Amino acid sequence: MIQFAQRMEHLRPSEIREMLKVTEDEAIISLAGGNPAPELFPVSAMAATTQAVLEEAGGQALQYSTTEGFAPLRAQIAERMNRKFKTAFAARNILITNGSQQGLDLSGKVFLNEGDAVLCEKPMYLAAINAFRVFRPRFVEVPTDSEGMITAELERLLATTDRLKLVYVVPDFQNPTGISWSAERRRQFMDAVSRYDIAVIEDNPYGELRYEGELLPSLKSMDRKGQVICFGTFSKTFCPGLRVGWVAAEESILEKYILVKQSADLHTSSLSQRTISKFLDSYDFDANVEIIKATYKKRRDIMLRCMAKEFPAEIRYTQPHGGLFIWVELPSCLNARDILTVCLEHQVAFVPGGAFFPNGGMENTMRLNFSNMTEERIAEGIRRLGKVLRQMLNPAAH
Amino acid sequence: MIQFAQRMEHLRPSEIREMLKVTEDEAIISLAGGNPAPELFPVSAMAATTQAVLEEAGGQALQYSTTEGFAPLRAQIAERMNRKFKTAFAARNILITNGSQQGLDLSGKVFLNEGDAVLCEKPMYLAAINAFRVFRPRFVEVPTDSEGMITAELERLLATTDRLKLVYVVPDFQNPTGISWSAERRRQFMDAVSRYDIAVIEDNPYGELRYEGELLPSLKSMDRKGQVICFGTFSKTFCPGLRVGWVAAEESILEKYILVKQSADLHTSSLSQRTISKFLDSYDFDANVEIIKATYKKRRDIMLRCMAKEFPAEIRYTQPHGGLFIWVELPSCLNARDILTVCLEHQVAFVPGGAFFPNGGMENTMRLNFSNMTEERIAEGIRRLGKVLRQMLNPAAH
Repeated sequence: MIQFAQRMEHLRPSEIREMLKVTEDEAIISLAGGNPAPELFPVSAMAATTQAVLEEAGGQALQYSTTEGFAPLRAQIAERMNRKFKTAFAARNILITNGSQQGLDLSGKVFLNEGDAVLCEKPMYLAAINAFRVFRPRFVEVPTDSEGMITAELERLLATTDRLKLVYVVPDFQNPTGISWSAERRRQFMDAVSRYDIAVIEDNPYGELRYEGELLPSLKSMDRKGQVICFGTFSKTFCPGLRVGWVAAEESILEKYILVKQSADLHTSSLSQRTISKFLDSYDFDANVEIIKATYKKRRDIMLRCMAKEFPAEIRYTQPHGGLFIWVELPSCLNARDILTVCLEHQVAFVPGGAFFPNGGMENTMRLNFSNMTEERIAEGIRRLGKVLRQMLNPAAH
Repeated sequence: MIQFAQRMEHLRPSEIREMLKVTEDEAIISLAGGNPAPELFPVSAMAATTQAVLEEAGGQALQYSTTEGFAPLRAQIAERMNRKFKTAFAARNILITNGSQQGLDLSGKVFLNEGDAVLCEKPMYLAAINAFRVFRPRFVEVPTDSEGMITAELERLLATTDRLKLVYVVPDFQNPTGISWSAERRRQFMDAVSRYDIAVIEDNPYGELRYEGELLPSLKSMDRKGQVICFGTFSKTFCPGLRVGWVAAEESILEKYILVKQSADLHTSSLSQRTISKFLDSYDFDANVEIIKATYKKRRDIMLRCMAKEFPAEIRYTQPHGGLFIWVELPSCLNARDILTVCLEHQVAFVPGGAFFPNGGMENTMRLNFSNMTEERIAEGIRRLGKVLRQMLNPAAH
C-alpha cells in the first residue's frame, strides 16, 4: 500500500461538492450551491473581447507570463479597490490568483505551521476550512451575532490563544450567514487586532453585491499597521469560470505569496487575465454589476417572502442586505442532515450548516442560496422545504 | 512583525525567474528560459475555437465546474496518452490541473510529511525542487549518466533511504539535461521500484518532442502495481498560457489529488478546458506538434553545430534527441554563476546549473535552451558564449 501524508487523514470530500452531484439532476430545485446566475454572464462580449485580445497580443496571450500577473490588470484591480473600498493599493500590491480560493491555499503556506491557530468567525466559509486544514492548524471560533464578531469574545480569544498566526473574516455578506458587520464592530475589530502582530485576511467576494443600505468601511481602510490582506475575485461580479481572483497586501507580505504561488502553478492563465483586463477597458463593468444586483435582489426578496409564509414561526433566519445566502437556525431538536434526506425525496436541496463549523456542532442550521434559481423555482423550493420543516416539527399532525 | 510559517525560511525566489527579469531586455540573447516559440502558437485557430465554445456552451463555459475537470477533455487526454504512451487510462483516471506545475504542488500535499524523502534524478527539474520544498522533504539524489538513473545507485538508495515516500523522474528529454532514459534503464528502474510501496511520478512534458530515434516505452506502460503517476501538459505541444495540464493515476490515488486540488483552487478554468477540448476535436493537433518538432530540431541542430565550433574542446555537453535543453559541464575550476556575470555584459544569458541540484554543488554546469530563439540568434548567442568560455579557460591568451 502506498503511504499518503498524514494531512490526508484529516481531509474529507466537501459536503457541498457531494451535494452538487445529486443536484446535477435538473428536476431537483437546488438551493445548495453558491453559483452565480449564468444567464447574466456577458457571453457575447466575452467572445468579442477574447477575439480582440488574440488579435492584438498574438502569441503573447498564449505564452508563459509572470507569477505576479498581467501588469495592466494588477493596476486596474488596485484602482478599482481603492475606488470601491477606500484602500490605497498600487499595482505592485496585487497578485493575481486562480480565484480567491487559491488565496486561501497560499495563505496556509505562507503563515501556518502545524498546530498554529486560525481565529475565525463562527460559522465560517466551508472552503476556507478545507484549504487551511491541509496545513493542520487549530481553528478558534469567535462567536458572532447579527452585527458580526462579538467584540468581547474576540478580545478574550486574541489575548488567550496560543500560537495565533492568522485571522480570517468575511465582513461583507458572509458565506454562509449573509451577515454584514456593522461599522462599529468593524472599528472595534481593527482596534483589537491592531494590538497584535498577526495577519488578518479580509475576504470580500460579495462586497459589491449590496441590495440596500450604505457601503460600510472595509477593514483595510482602517488598517494602520499593514496587517490586513485583502482577497478579491471576479467570480461573483463577472464570471467564475475563468478562475481569476487576487490577493492585495503590503509588499513585504505579498512577496511571500508570490513565492508560493510560483511553486504552486507558475502563474494564472495569461489569456484569462488579458481578457478580463480588456473587458474592464472596453465595457461598463459597473453597469453589469448593477444588472446582477437587481436580479439577485429580486431573488432574495422572493425567498424571504416565501420563507415568511411557509416556514414555521419558531425557525429563525438572517435577512441579508447583500450577497448570495440566507442562514437558517432550526430548533435544536432538529438535524439538518436528516432534513436534507427527506428534502431530496421532495426534490429540493440545501447545504446542512454543520459543515461550516470547523470544530463541529450546530447541526440544526442550514444555508440557502438564492442567486442561481429563477424566482418561480425559488418559490417552489421554499414551499417544498417549508412543508418538510412543518412535518418534522410537528410529526403528529401529519 | 508578522510571523510567517517556518517553511518560508527555506523558500527562495527561483534563479530562472530572476534571470528572466534581466532578459526582458530584447537586446539580450536569452538561452535561459524554457519558453516554447510563441510564433508557433495557433493564434487564429484559438480565436475561432474560443468563439465556437462560447456560442455553443454559452454561460456554462464561464460558470464554476467540477474539480476533476471537463469530462470530454479528460476522455480525450486518456485516449491520447494511451495512443502515444501505451498506457491504459480512462477519463476517470485524469485530473485537469493548472499546468503540470500544479501536479507537483498537489503531490507534495498528498505524499509528503516534513522530513520524508523524495528520490530524484541528479540533476532534477528546478521548479519541482521549489514545489516539493514547501513541504520540507529531504532530497535524495540518484546519480545519472547519459542513459538515465544508474541502476546500482538507484537500488542502493531505495534499500537504504529512510522514510522514502516519492520518486520523481523525467525519463524523456529531461529538464535540465535533455537526456532520455534508455529502454534497458527504464525496465531496470521499474523492476527496482516495484519492490517498494512507493509512489513514482513520471513527469513527461517533452515526450512528444522527439527529433530522432524510436519512441521508448513509458514507465507507466510497465507499471504492474499501479504505483506510477503520470503528469502531462499542453504547454510544450500546444501553448502554456492557458495553464492546462493533468495528473493521470489509479483512482485510489487520484481521489487524493482531487481532494487537494479542490481546496487549492476549486478547478481549472472552464473556458480554457473547453477551448482545448474543442481544438482537439476541430483541428489536427498532431500536425501542429510536427511543425513544432521540425522547428525545434533545426534550432537544436544549429545550437549543437555552433557549440562544436565555438566551445573549447574540454567542455562536455549532451546531444539530446528531443526536448528543449542542452546541458553543459565545464571544467570543475569554473563557476557558471561567474560566467553568467561576464556573459550578461556580452548580452547573452543562460541558467547556471547549480540550481538544479537540491543539495547544492555542481556549480560548473549550465543549461541552454534552444526553443525560444531564431536560428540566427542562437548562432550569435553561442558565438558570444563560446568567446567568454575561451577567455575564462585561458585568461592569459587574452
